[in-house]
Amino acid sequence: MNDQHLVEKPISSEPIFAGNFMKVMRDTVELPNGRHAFREYIKHSGAVAIFALDKDNNIVMERQYRTPVSQVMIEVPAGKIDAGEDYLTCGKRELLEETGYVSDKWDYLGEILPCIGYSTEKIVFYVARDVVFTEAKLDEGEFLEVYTQPLDELLTDAYNGKITDGKTLAGLLLLNGYLAKNK
Amino acid sequence: MNDQHLVEKPISSEPIFAGNFMKVMRDTVELPNGRHAFREYIKHSGAVAIFALDKDNNIVMERQYRTPVSQVMIEVPAGKIDAGEDYLTCGKRELLEETGYVSDKWDYLGEILPCIGYSTEKIVFYVARDVVFTEAKLDEGEFLEVYTQPLDELLTDAYNGKITDGKTLAGLLLLNGYLAKNK
Repeated sequence: MNDQHLVEKPISSEPIFAGNFMKVMRDTVELPNGRHAFREYIKHSGAVAIFALDKDNNIVMERQYRTPVSQVMIEVPAGKIDAGEDYLTCGKRELLEETGYVSDKWDYLGEILPCIGYSTEKIVFYVARDVVFTEAKLDEGEFLEVYTQPLDELLTDAYNGKITDGKTLAGLLLLNGYLAKNK
Repeated sequence: MNDQHLVEKPISSEPIFAGNFMKVMRDTVELPNGRHAFREYIKHSGAVAIFALDKDNNIVMERQYRTPVSQVMIEVPAGKIDAGEDYLTCGKRELLEETGYVSDKWDYLGEILPCIGYSTEKIVFYVARDVVFTEAKLDEGEFLEVYTQPLDELLTDAYNGKITDGKTLAGLLLLNGYLAKNK
């Protein structure tokens, strides 16, 4: 497909801010009409999210406080890629660390770009089947609650506004499609 | 519910970066164990996204280049709140400006927090029914393609990885629930 009427050509790219955790870039781009514009965005290393299903297809979920939105959020387990780590290794590590569940049946589910206006972040989703509980190994300073819930209850909570985390809702759509093909 | 074992108490909050478009905050918080930690995040004014359905329930979609992810994305029409604007007014304005479609049947669909780790952004979703095409009024420097597609095709494109925009996937889940109740 020829998308020259849509594509912004990169002219230059520079870091304009680095905090303790956050890096901000500013790119100059050439618009399809030849004019120049600025684009500011966060440079992100990527993340993994895991739908962990036990043998009865109950799903492992978390409750965690998120300061940017000042509330306890219901979320699918997820975490950032460590330097040099591949996505599946990260998924297994995060699921074990945060929830204590392990599995030897992992499927790639799909991926999402959660924040295309101002972040490079990509989240890769996996499904872990027949998970078994061992013991969580939370990072120092990490506080969360872990529980399991059937998919139909999760969907009800999504439709009635109890779940508002974007990655969790997007992932539930993908999981629905996956389970229709992989009961 | 008593969430004191999860909640991070605000100690202080300060702006640490302001670009042309982006504001970054750094909060100091007290963790449930009494220790202090930093949280960095983007302060965002909020946004609206619109599932615009024609009388045959075809859905108005867009293709738009997004520099942070260096690709043309398939997206539900959406846009940022202007200062002082309410969400529904923003939805009607953005749908008209970006796509040229109008409707007099608007329903609240739900809301998502797309990026709870590092942004305050909230996206409010509406459904506009029986939309009619008039004329798009794109902002100077805005380039996008508008087309319509049936829901089942959109879901297929979501499941096969053709649609990866997080807000669009999350919104499709909510739309699915809505249409099951409001055919």
